[in-house]
Amino acid sequence: VEPWRTAISTWDDRHIWIQGYDVAQLMASATFADIVFLLHKGRMPSEAERRLVDAMLIAVADHGPGSPSAAAARTVASGNRAAPEAAIAAGVLAIGDAHGGAGLACLQLISDAMTQSRASATDVTTIARRVVDEARAGNRRLPGIGHRTHTRDPRTGVLFELARTGGLAGDGIAFMVALEAAAAESIKPLPINVDGAIAAVLYDLGFPPAIGKLFFIIGRVAGLSAQVVEEYTRERAMRIKIPVAYDGPAPRELDSGKVGP
Amino acid sequence: VEPWRTAISTWDDRHIWIQGYDVAQLMASATFADIVFLLHKGRMPSEAERRLVDAMLIAVADHGPGSPSAAAARTVASGNRAAPEAAIAAGVLAIGDAHGGAGLACLQLISDAMTQSRASATDVTTIARRVVDEARAGNRRLPGIGHRTHTRDPRTGVLFELARTGGLAGDGIAFMVALEAAAAESIKPLPINVDGAIAAVLYDLGFPPAIGKLFFIIGRVAGLSAQVVEEYTRERAMRIKIPVAYDGPAPRELDSGKVGP
Amino acid sequence: VEPWRTAISTWDDRHIWIQGYDVAQLMASATFADIVFLLHKGRMPSEAERRLVDAMLIAVADHGPGSPSAAAARTVASGNRAAPEAAIAAGVLAIGDAHGGAGLACLQLISDAMTQSRASATDVTTIARRVVDEARAGNRRLPGIGHRTHTRDPRTGVLFELARTGGLAGDGIAFMVALEAAAAESIKPLPINVDGAIAAVLYDLGFPPAIGKLFFIIGRVAGLSAQVVEEYTRERAMRIKIPVAYDGPAPRELDSGKVGP
Amino acid sequence: VEPWRTAISTWDDRHIWIQGYDVAQLMASATFADIVFLLHKGRMPSEAERRLVDAMLIAVADHGPGSPSAAAARTVASGNRAAPEAAIAAGVLAIGDAHGGAGLACLQLISDAMTQSRASATDVTTIARRVVDEARAGNRRLPGIGHRTHTRDPRTGVLFELARTGGLAGDGIAFMVALEAAAAESIKPLPINVDGAIAAVLYDLGFPPAIGKLFFIIGRVAGLSAQVVEEYTRERAMRIKIPVAYDGPAPRELDSGKVGP
Repeated sequence: VEPWRTAISTWDDRHIWIQGYDVAQLMASATFADIVFLLHKGRMPSEAERRLVDAMLIAVADHGPGSPSAAAARTVASGNRAAPEAAIAAGVLAIGDAHGGAGLACLQLISDAMTQSRASATDVTTIARRVVDEARAGNRRLPGIGHRTHTRDPRTGVLFELARTGGLAGDGIAFMVALEAAAAESIKPLPINVDGAIAAVLYDLGFPPAIGKLFFIIGRVAGLSAQVVEEYTRERAMRIKIPVAYDGPAPRELDSGKVGP
Repeated sequence: VEPWRTAISTWDDRHIWIQGYDVAQLMASATFADIVFLLHKGRMPSEAERRLVDAMLIAVADHGPGSPSAAAARTVASGNRAAPEAAIAAGVLAIGDAHGGAGLACLQLISDAMTQSRASATDVTTIARRVVDEARAGNRRLPGIGHRTHTRDPRTGVLFELARTGGLAGDGIAFMVALEAAAAESIKPLPINVDGAIAAVLYDLGFPPAIGKLFFIIGRVAGLSAQVVEEYTRERAMRIKIPVAYDGPAPRELDSGKVGP
Repeated sequence: VEPWRTAISTWDDRHIWIQGYDVAQLMASATFADIVFLLHKGRMPSEAERRLVDAMLIAVADHGPGSPSAAAARTVASGNRAAPEAAIAAGVLAIGDAHGGAGLACLQLISDAMTQSRASATDVTTIARRVVDEARAGNRRLPGIGHRTHTRDPRTGVLFELARTGGLAGDGIAFMVALEAAAAESIKPLPINVDGAIAAVLYDLGFPPAIGKLFFIIGRVAGLSAQVVEEYTRERAMRIKIPVAYDGPAPRELDSGKVGP
Repeated sequence: VEPWRTAISTWDDRHIWIQGYDVAQLMASATFADIVFLLHKGRMPSEAERRLVDAMLIAVADHGPGSPSAAAARTVASGNRAAPEAAIAAGVLAIGDAHGGAGLACLQLISDAMTQSRASATDVTTIARRVVDEARAGNRRLPGIGHRTHTRDPRTGVLFELARTGGLAGDGIAFMVALEAAAAESIKPLPINVDGAIAAVLYDLGFPPAIGKLFFIIGRVAGLSAQVVEEYTRERAMRIKIPVAYDGPAPRELDSGKVGP
C-alpha cells in the first residue's frame, strides 16, 4: 500500500507542525484566520490579508435559521439530539450550487474572464458586457450578483473597501464591479452579493476556484454550531412541523395496481 | 405554522446583525475568533478570551491525513470530486465519540465533578482520585487524558499557560491537572490531551458541555478543507486502495442456501 | 499496514460473492430483501423471514415530506441541486435518537428485559410492569410505544400478524405486547409504534440491537430518494421559506461590546 | 407559509398511503423492490420490471470494504461508534462522480444520444461511434464502460439477459452495446460496467437521468449497513492506520514567516 502524500502538516511524539510552523507557537501568537490562510496558501498572511480573511469568514458566519444550511442543521438536530456532528454535517451539505456555492461558480467565471481578457487584450468592461450578453442569451443566472433577501448586500462594500485600503484590490474586484455595471445596463440593478464579493477577493488573493465554496463552509460552520446549540437548548425534539399539501393519487386498491403498464 | 425562534442573528434589506452587532462593523474590526465566541456566548470576548479561542481553534485545525476526520474527507473526495461539501461533511461525521468527541465527554466529566465538589465541599484532588478509582473499577477510559500518538500533547501546556497568563484559569484546569496526577498515581502517566485541555478551558470560560465537540468541529473544518483541496489537486480520482483480507464463507451454491434455519 | 478484515463479500476479476453466493446468481433469482437479510445474518432467509424483511422495509419507506429525514433531505436539495447524495445523506443524518432511532433503544430494552426475565425466571408481564414503573419514576419516555401522528400505528398489526402466521413470533413480540398493556394500565393507552414493532420482530429474528436503526435507514432511503427527485422536479432552488421570529439583542454599538465580562 | 406539495404519500390517524396504496396492504403482499419502483414511477411494476429492480439493487449492494463508499463509512465508524447514521451518511457521500456516479452521467449520455438519434434519424451504431470519437478527441472518459477491478463486469450480462427475457430491452441496452463495440474498435476493449448496465436498464424502464445515482445509493446502503456493523463488532475504535508520507516544508521559525508575500 502506498502512503498518502501530504504537504500540509506532520507531527512527532512532542510536536505538530502546520506548513513547517510549530502548532504550539501558532497557538500562542497567531489567529485562526492566519491558520486558514496558511493551510490553503502555504505561508502566513500579511496584516491586510489577515483582515480580509477575517472579514470573509465573518461575512458568511450566520444568516439566521432560515438559510438552507441552518434550516437543514436544525431539522437534523430536531430528530437527532445525540449527535451534533450529524446536524453540522447536514448544514454543510446544503451549501451546494444554489446556496453558498455561487462562490465557486463566480471564482470560475472571474478566472475564465481574466484569462480571456489577457489572451485577447480586451478590457474588463468589454469582457463583462460579453458575459452578461451571453448569460441573457442563454437565459442563465450570473453567479455572484443578485440576492433573494438584500437589494444591496451590506457585506460587499466592506470587503471591497478593506481590499482597497490594504492595497489588495485587483482584477477580481475590477471585473465584478464591471459585471455589476453591465448587468445594470442590460438587465436590471443586481447588487454584487457576498458570494461574488468573496470570489473577487479570493481571486485577488490568488486562490484557486475550488476555494470559493470552502471559505463559505469554514465561516458558516461557526453559525451552524450556534444554531444547533440553540435548537438543543430552546426547543424540544421533533418540534418542527412542515405544512404539507398532498396532491397525489387518491386511495386505490392494490390488485388493479399490481399489474404493470 | 409557528415561526422558528432565534436569538442569534437577524437582518433587514441592508443589514445583518449578529447578537445585535452590525456584520459590516464586525467584518471591519473583529476577528473570526471574536465571532465564534460571540455566537456561542452572546457577547464579545476580552483580549484574553479571544487569545484562548484562537489557540483552541488552531490546536485542532489539522493533524494530518491519517486522522479519521481527514481520512474520511479524503476518501469521499476520492470518489466524489464534484462536491467538496460532501467531503467536508464526511470529515465532520468522523468527529464522534472516539475521535474529537472526548471534548464533550470531558466537559461533562468536569462539570459533574465540580458540581460534586461544591455539593460536598470536597477538594478537587479528592474528587479526581475518586473519578480515577471509579473508572478503574468500571474498566472505563477517562476522557481527556492519554493520546494514541503523543506521550505528552504539545498543545496542552500552551493552552493552560495562556489561560493562566490571561487570568482565566479556574476549576476546569485545576480539575484536569488533578485528574492527570491521580491517573499517574494509580494507573500510569497519561498526559492531558488536547480534548481534555480544551474541555478545561471551555469550562473555565463558562461554556456548556455540548460545546466540547463543536469547537473541535469549527477548528478542524479548516484543516479538512485543506486536506480536500490537496486530494483534488495532487491525486487522481479513486486512487485510494485499501488492502483487504476476506475471511468469510467460501463460494457456495444458492439452492442449498435458499432454505432458512 | 494491516489489511482490513471482512467476512461480507469478496471478488475476483469475473465474480463478486456476497457471503459466498455469486452475485450474478443472486441477481437472477433473489430479492433485495433476501440480500438485506443475507448481508446482516450470513444466510439466506426462509419464505417467512423474507416476508418480514420486506414488510419492515416497506413500513418505514416513506412518511411524507414533513418527517425530519425527508424535510432535511428536501432542505438540502433546495440549496444543493447538483449533488443528490448530499440530500440523501442529510436525510439519513436526521435518523437519530428522536426520529427512527427508537428502534435501537427499543431493541436494547427488549434485549435487557429478556436477559432479566431469563436470569430471574420472571414472566414478561411482570418485567414489562417493572419497566413501565421505572420509566414513570425516572420520568423517561418508553421507546417503541406512542406516536406523534397515529393513535394506533397501522403498521404494527401487520408486522405482528405476519410474524405469527410465519411462526416467527417470539419473546420480542410478547414483551412489546406486555409493555403496551402495562403502559395502558399505569400511564395511558400508548400504541406500539412502527419502531417498537420492528424492534420486536428484529429481536425475534435474532438480530443484535445495532440493527434497530439500520433497518429504518435502509428502508427510508427509498423514500428519501423519491422525495429528493420530487424536490428537484417540482420545485425551484431555494424555494423553502422558514418563518423566523428573532428575540435576541437589539442593535447595539460594537465599541461598548468589545470589552469582555 | 406555503405548504410543501407532495404526490408521493399521505396519511391520517390510522393509515399511510404510498401513491394511493395502503401501506398495511403493501407490507402484507408487496416486496421492497415494488415499493422502490412505485415511489419513483407512481405505479406498481410488472413481474419483469420487479425482477430488474431487484437485480439492479442486488448488483450494487456491496463490493467489499475497499470501495470508497464502504471505506468512508468504516473510517467514520472507526471514530464515531455512537452514531451509525453518521457512518452510513459518509458512505453515501462518497457516491459521487467517480464512484457510482457514472450511472447518472451514463443515463444522461444515453438520453442525449437517443434524442440525437431520433432527431437526425441516425442509427445507434453511428451515434455510438460519434460519441466515442468525441470522447477521444476531448480526452474524456466515457461513463458506463471500463472498471478498475473487473475486465468483464459479471453483473452486466445478467441484467441485460433479464431485460431481454422480460421483453424490456430497448434503446438503452442497444446503445450501450453499440458504445462498447465502438470503444473496442477505436480505443480498446472496455466492458460495460454495472453503472452502464443499470443506466441502460433504467433508460429502458423510462426513468429520468437523476435516478442513475439514486438507485446505486438505495442498493448500496444495505451493504454499507453490513460494513458498519462489521466495523463495530470486529474492530476497536480508532483502529484505522493510514500510512502517511509528508513532503511539505521543513520546520521553520514563525517570525520570518509572519510577513506576507
